[in-house]
Amino acid sequence: MAGSRVRQTHGSETREVILAAAEKLFAEHGVAAVSNRQVSEAAGQANNFAVGYHFGTKNDLVLAIVRRHAPPIERRREEMLAKFKGSLELRDGLACLVLPITEHLASLGPASWHARFLAQVTTDPALWKLVHDETVASPSMRETTKVFERLLPILPAEVREERADMSRQIIVHMCAERERALHAGTPTPRASWEAAGVGLVDALAGLWMAPFTPAK
Amino acid sequence: MAGSRVRQTHGSETREVILAAAEKLFAEHGVAAVSNRQVSEAAGQANNFAVGYHFGTKNDLVLAIVRRHAPPIERRREEMLAKFKGSLELRDGLACLVLPITEHLASLGPASWHARFLAQVTTDPALWKLVHDETVASPSMRETTKVFERLLPILPAEVREERADMSRQIIVHMCAERERALHAGTPTPRASWEAAGVGLVDALAGLWMAPFTPAK
Repeated sequence: MAGSRVRQTHGSETREVILAAAEKLFAEHGVAAVSNRQVSEAAGQANNFAVGYHFGTKNDLVLAIVRRHAPPIERRREEMLAKFKGSLELRDGLACLVLPITEHLASLGPASWHARFLAQVTTDPALWKLVHDETVASPSMRETTKVFERLLPILPAEVREERADMSRQIIVHMCAERERALHAGTPTPRASWEAAGVGLVDALAGLWMAPFTPAK
Repeated sequence: MAGSRVRQTHGSETREVILAAAEKLFAEHGVAAVSNRQVSEAAGQANNFAVGYHFGTKNDLVLAIVRRHAPPIERRREEMLAKFKGSLELRDGLACLVLPITEHLASLGPASWHARFLAQVTTDPALWKLVHDETVASPSMRETTKVFERLLPILPAEVREERADMSRQIIVHMCAERERALHAGTPTPRASWEAAGVGLVDALAGLWMAPFTPAK
């Protein structure tokens, strides 16, 4: 029993070390450019098949990284949804979308690679779909989507889809750029993740409410 | 004389082949991940120092790729500035910024790697600064910047800087994502580069005009 518990602890520590190594490598080089073997090596695993053994395919590994960050984001989003319950302000819906992410990134500190990892994932459409489908299936994201549907202006399908793409890109790439600057010790437009989150909510509200030019 | 002209033609053809090979490799793998030697090889150059011989450093090569695309973009921007001369509409200033790029990308067709190249460049702050400084120094961009200064709402410095970063990221990454989708034959929100350009102008106008939350 005791022996089995020790092995289990080591197993979960190994998983954590692999996830951290993989997130950093994917963030630096892109998901496609990094092999499971390189992740195993960077995680100090003597066995080159450690990633396969613990996680399965590379897609499984990417999803495991996303799932590792999900609970604190989910918890913050639940709290924010409760706070803004019944609000008719688009800004409040956007806050539920954005602030749980920027607050989570703030909590990770300057050693984080998570925003840059997400920026790499979003450049691979198939991988992004996998992560997106996983993320929007969470209870808090299902609720946030419902709130959003209610608060958005009426837009043609293509404008809606386009602005959803733009929103994802602004959130992901602004966070990645901020994370990169904090890591390098270079200046950022905003003094804190909190201010950066507010700036995103402000700008996205303008983007979604912008009049659109009807298709010719 | 004849012999020297032939050599010159070959030299400029070699430069073109190297630029095309470099742009594709940088777009696919990131600028940092690709060596001058790999570019020389992909360009079919027997001499591994062909890039160094023709362009100098890797930064020089990146700038040469940007300069190769500059004249048609510059020409379209001059035309657009003439068209909107004296306008007081922020949308018209944004059109001068965005549409020369989307029209240029349309003219390149689905074999283009340019938008994805720019997306890779923008993830490297030092490299981006180099490209940015080169780009904003052109006569049409100096004029566009002046128009912009006149049309923008009054914003605190950090909000202005943040929204400039957001604008760059939306333009670069929406174009890169569209180029990638056209290349792969997968769906895009908009049916044409023209419509994508209009969508960017609409959304950016909203983003810039959005009310901002004053800093605490």
